[in-house]
Amino acid sequence: MPPIKIDLYSDTVTRPTAPMRKFMSEAEVGDEQKFEDPTVNLLQERVGELLGKEAGLYLPSGTMCNQIAFRIHCRPGDEVLLHRTAHPLISEAGGLAALSSAIPTGLEARRGVFSAEQVRAAIRPLNRYAPCTRVVSIEQTSNSGGGTPWPVQAIEEVATVAREHGLILHMDGARLFNAVVASGTQARDFAAPFDTVWVDFSKGLGAPVGAVLAGRRELIEEAWVWKQRLGGAMRQAGIIAAGALYALEHHIERLAEDHANAKVLAEGLAEIPGVTLDPGEVETNIVMFDVSEPASAVLGRLLEQGVRVSQPGPHRLRAVTHLDISRQDVEEALQVARRCFS
Amino acid sequence: MPPIKIDLYSDTVTRPTAPMRKFMSEAEVGDEQKFEDPTVNLLQERVGELLGKEAGLYLPSGTMCNQIAFRIHCRPGDEVLLHRTAHPLISEAGGLAALSSAIPTGLEARRGVFSAEQVRAAIRPLNRYAPCTRVVSIEQTSNSGGGTPWPVQAIEEVATVAREHGLILHMDGARLFNAVVASGTQARDFAAPFDTVWVDFSKGLGAPVGAVLAGRRELIEEAWVWKQRLGGAMRQAGIIAAGALYALEHHIERLAEDHANAKVLAEGLAEIPGVTLDPGEVETNIVMFDVSEPASAVLGRLLEQGVRVSQPGPHRLRAVTHLDISRQDVEEALQVARRCFS
Amino acid sequence: MPPIKIDLYSDTVTRPTAPMRKFMSEAEVGDEQKFEDPTVNLLQERVGELLGKEAGLYLPSGTMCNQIAFRIHCRPGDEVLLHRTAHPLISEAGGLAALSSAIPTGLEARRGVFSAEQVRAAIRPLNRYAPCTRVVSIEQTSNSGGGTPWPVQAIEEVATVAREHGLILHMDGARLFNAVVASGTQARDFAAPFDTVWVDFSKGLGAPVGAVLAGRRELIEEAWVWKQRLGGAMRQAGIIAAGALYALEHHIERLAEDHANAKVLAEGLAEIPGVTLDPGEVETNIVMFDVSEPASAVLGRLLEQGVRVSQPGPHRLRAVTHLDISRQDVEEALQVARRCFS
Amino acid sequence: MPPIKIDLYSDTVTRPTAPMRKFMSEAEVGDEQKFEDPTVNLLQERVGELLGKEAGLYLPSGTMCNQIAFRIHCRPGDEVLLHRTAHPLISEAGGLAALSSAIPTGLEARRGVFSAEQVRAAIRPLNRYAPCTRVVSIEQTSNSGGGTPWPVQAIEEVATVAREHGLILHMDGARLFNAVVASGTQARDFAAPFDTVWVDFSKGLGAPVGAVLAGRRELIEEAWVWKQRLGGAMRQAGIIAAGALYALEHHIERLAEDHANAKVLAEGLAEIPGVTLDPGEVETNIVMFDVSEPASAVLGRLLEQGVRVSQPGPHRLRAVTHLDISRQDVEEALQVARRCFS
Repeated sequence: MPPIKIDLYSDTVTRPTAPMRKFMSEAEVGDEQKFEDPTVNLLQERVGELLGKEAGLYLPSGTMCNQIAFRIHCRPGDEVLLHRTAHPLISEAGGLAALSSAIPTGLEARRGVFSAEQVRAAIRPLNRYAPCTRVVSIEQTSNSGGGTPWPVQAIEEVATVAREHGLILHMDGARLFNAVVASGTQARDFAAPFDTVWVDFSKGLGAPVGAVLAGRRELIEEAWVWKQRLGGAMRQAGIIAAGALYALEHHIERLAEDHANAKVLAEGLAEIPGVTLDPGEVETNIVMFDVSEPASAVLGRLLEQGVRVSQPGPHRLRAVTHLDISRQDVEEALQVARRCFS
Repeated sequence: MPPIKIDLYSDTVTRPTAPMRKFMSEAEVGDEQKFEDPTVNLLQERVGELLGKEAGLYLPSGTMCNQIAFRIHCRPGDEVLLHRTAHPLISEAGGLAALSSAIPTGLEARRGVFSAEQVRAAIRPLNRYAPCTRVVSIEQTSNSGGGTPWPVQAIEEVATVAREHGLILHMDGARLFNAVVASGTQARDFAAPFDTVWVDFSKGLGAPVGAVLAGRRELIEEAWVWKQRLGGAMRQAGIIAAGALYALEHHIERLAEDHANAKVLAEGLAEIPGVTLDPGEVETNIVMFDVSEPASAVLGRLLEQGVRVSQPGPHRLRAVTHLDISRQDVEEALQVARRCFS
Repeated sequence: MPPIKIDLYSDTVTRPTAPMRKFMSEAEVGDEQKFEDPTVNLLQERVGELLGKEAGLYLPSGTMCNQIAFRIHCRPGDEVLLHRTAHPLISEAGGLAALSSAIPTGLEARRGVFSAEQVRAAIRPLNRYAPCTRVVSIEQTSNSGGGTPWPVQAIEEVATVAREHGLILHMDGARLFNAVVASGTQARDFAAPFDTVWVDFSKGLGAPVGAVLAGRRELIEEAWVWKQRLGGAMRQAGIIAAGALYALEHHIERLAEDHANAKVLAEGLAEIPGVTLDPGEVETNIVMFDVSEPASAVLGRLLEQGVRVSQPGPHRLRAVTHLDISRQDVEEALQVARRCFS
Repeated sequence: MPPIKIDLYSDTVTRPTAPMRKFMSEAEVGDEQKFEDPTVNLLQERVGELLGKEAGLYLPSGTMCNQIAFRIHCRPGDEVLLHRTAHPLISEAGGLAALSSAIPTGLEARRGVFSAEQVRAAIRPLNRYAPCTRVVSIEQTSNSGGGTPWPVQAIEEVATVAREHGLILHMDGARLFNAVVASGTQARDFAAPFDTVWVDFSKGLGAPVGAVLAGRRELIEEAWVWKQRLGGAMRQAGIIAAGALYALEHHIERLAEDHANAKVLAEGLAEIPGVTLDPGEVETNIVMFDVSEPASAVLGRLLEQGVRVSQPGPHRLRAVTHLDISRQDVEEALQVARRCFS
């Protein structure tokens, strides 16, 4: 197999840049378990402010943010409502049941943004027979929904129903900053109705490791115990937290470039016979497209030409733009794609 | 509220008959935890034979049969495919997640009998991200599906797909004997493809307490440990097991009367304006019917006249015939119903 | 092996008497899940009153009482302090960890009655590293401690330390009525400091099945959900609850006979060379005695003569008097024992 | 409070050196979840070789190594035998019960090295009542035991008993390399009898983050699923894994200096009136000493002079030497200590 030249597999493949590496190598550090790592402390505060929450907790991954949040919110047998392709349901090895003894119930919605009415209809009656519906979780942006941002309005409607029924609200903000840049809405405005929300630094922001979970102080203190219990408590984690701080400073606004690149890619792909795709639906950095052939065949041909994409379905492919993908990479990828389909 | 004269709420409300009470009071007993209760031992053997399984285990309820079976079959994070209204999903307080750390995924099917193709489509890819699909569970007959029996053919098709993918098969046989009597198929033929299957004695069979879980010997030995752990191990349980033995002897064939009564009830209800119901779909002892008014209003008017039914949905009512409901009760219930809708 | 003529294995082997069977067979019953079983309701109320608690919950076994109580009291990773031979630690298949994700920490005490100072020393510091010590559990009487009753004074001392540290108090009252009869202290006085307490009917009280867990109303409501989840919710359970009601009426005061028989047995055994035993320590119906030979050999010889005891240790045997053991049985057992040791 | 000049709190407080930082900043990285991070891959292989195991798995902490290992080894209700001060029992927030539903049973041993006979005596009978004793876990070196290394001979004796009873063996090798350097025994020889073993890089080895769990390939594959589920799967983790690789190359042999420094510290402390300590028992880098005064008072006075130690008990202090502690620091600390006690 030839080397991968243009890696559109995911925005998780970005590598730290030289200045980010330099910044990380100079980080002031201490033992984070004793609250003595100034870089970790600073990152947690800064994210708390950005999201308008009292406190933040640095964790080795977004998955751990999800797992700890659900663990804190749920009692055994409780139910979490979320999109049927949401990360905690399809990509966390069944952790919601394994760690929180909770039932994830998947809601349908073509682009990942389900409605307040769907939530209302899904809430179970309160009695000792039925699972107790406890949490509504949304993914910002929806990955399997093609990077679609949840509009503030849709969030507020869901939140209203949730509050009426005493439900807890959680946001998986793996790509929250993509939504921020695409919509012009501030992160704290997206985050406002949520009890817990987290942002990831290892995706579009281009840092190597880590995420921060934010919420009310007493929830974050409870989260600390779970961080310790799960083995997420590290030592001189300032080294990696520095990458996140650098990304907050330097890599948010530039997400607009990824979005523009994704748009160009989408428009180019849409013109290729055998590809089905509405470029108008590409709002951030994820391009989902359907192919008439088996997707695995197309994926293989692209890979032979050095272009890597992923395959979420038998006739569906996904390409993601990110920090390591330039406009020129997109143009080249399109040329390769045209050849692969002709 | 006047007393309930005709209780169509469920077949769980049947009371032990005088001869059953007498038989129970004369049961030979011992400490079942030491395998010294001859009545419990006999019941377990007899059910094992009836279902064509190596061993049986007497438990205080069908819910415990379900919970122990899933607990034995699943590892944390595993997924169980079952109908979206199946008992373990909607009526066991989220036990599948709480006790087995498993994810119940509900399949759609109007009358509770989902297809092999639905199972095939629902099985997740094997990798370290996705939950591992582990068990397919069916409910015989489907309660929320209006008492619809799973035909042997449908079971065999689902079993074939399950076997192709290495899945485990479980049958919740709460009303298996209703299916036996309605179809003429033997219990062992229904049970054949299943790793675990249980039958309940406190529903149509009219015994006060208990169910038997059956399967391969090594599974039942593992189930014994869970019986002890959950607190299902009793002492001189032969007293109640005797009720089950009596029911096996005397109350299976008479389920045909319940089915005939249900048919009469269905046909009568179908003629009432404001009631929607296809009597052709009533195959056993459960009559589901839709009402144009709010179901709660109808339920209340019936109750004022001494007839109790249950309300599975905002416009849906359920009436169940059983041991304590005679043909005359059905006729009277129909008269009451006609008045309530006029 | 000849038949067992005198069964001193445990007070769990008692069989329901003829009048108890008759009373059970005439019980008024209903669906207990709908709170419609008058006999179950009456039993729960009566036990609540006896123990001075707001509410009671009928369950199929004392093990389920323990498991549900700990499940309600503990969060994952919490610690329960109890005697190192307490039933939940050694006889419930690890349920404390399996169902409640709690750590049982065993305290030493020769006769099962540990001290307030031991509790104080065992309580862990509150921080995010250590398990959180949550519950102190005592067993009344201590089975492995030779049926020793906890004096009210010892309970109060432990309770004082527990309250100082915000711990929850649980009593496993499997043989609470033996303590009541032996001490003259009322059940409610023993039960007063405890958040949850349960009594068993299938041991000295001679009923075939069941126990009642009692406590504050909101705890019992939470317990109901776990009863449903674990599969402890039955249907016309009044049949067996009637046995418990009968036992409360007729079998409490007679425990004094079991105690007198145990004393006679202990004094007789103590005179046999090769047996070590202080009859002064036999306060209720359990007689622990050490033998110089391997206990299994002695047990076997007794069994060949129709006398069954149990073997809690390599040189320790246990004999328990109960409803089905008369003074004459004790005399005969002593004769057999004398032959076995000569 | 004045700044800490000499930090003997723990070897977890070491900060990465300048050359380690440089090496980390130049690490070649990729997405470790796709096995595309060459630095992580290399570290895993190297540790596997060092420990003589088929495979290794990089994790964010030693706590996660412990938790995942127990999770893989145990079924619900199983028992783990380990020292009563072992890290998984006292410092992982009850994770053994919370994540693995296992019971940790603490064995006594003054210096952390329990005997094969203790293990034999603790193994429970196999039946459906008792917890199933499943794992023996040792800590190399024993932290609370004053850094005492387990000799190979003691390990082999415990392993023999474990194998006789079909138990699984786990080594918490947080300070395995201290034992290697102190004893001259190779890491793979210490590791040989164990099913799973892990080493930590953030303690004496001076890397900021991470540990590697090693064992048979199929166990490590199972561990991968739990890594994903717990949120331990990172992205370009090569940045931090590089610190571990650097430490393996440069920081193992130098542990001898820490040991020599600890010896000097111990001998100096032993001469101070009011301090009780046997320097002959200091074999690695941990110095436990008892003080006649309340330990918290001494700790406070040391801290006022810029020397930080930790306080494992009311009259016990602990000082740990490490990469950031020079011989001169030890001499200064001793001077401070002499003043504090005079």
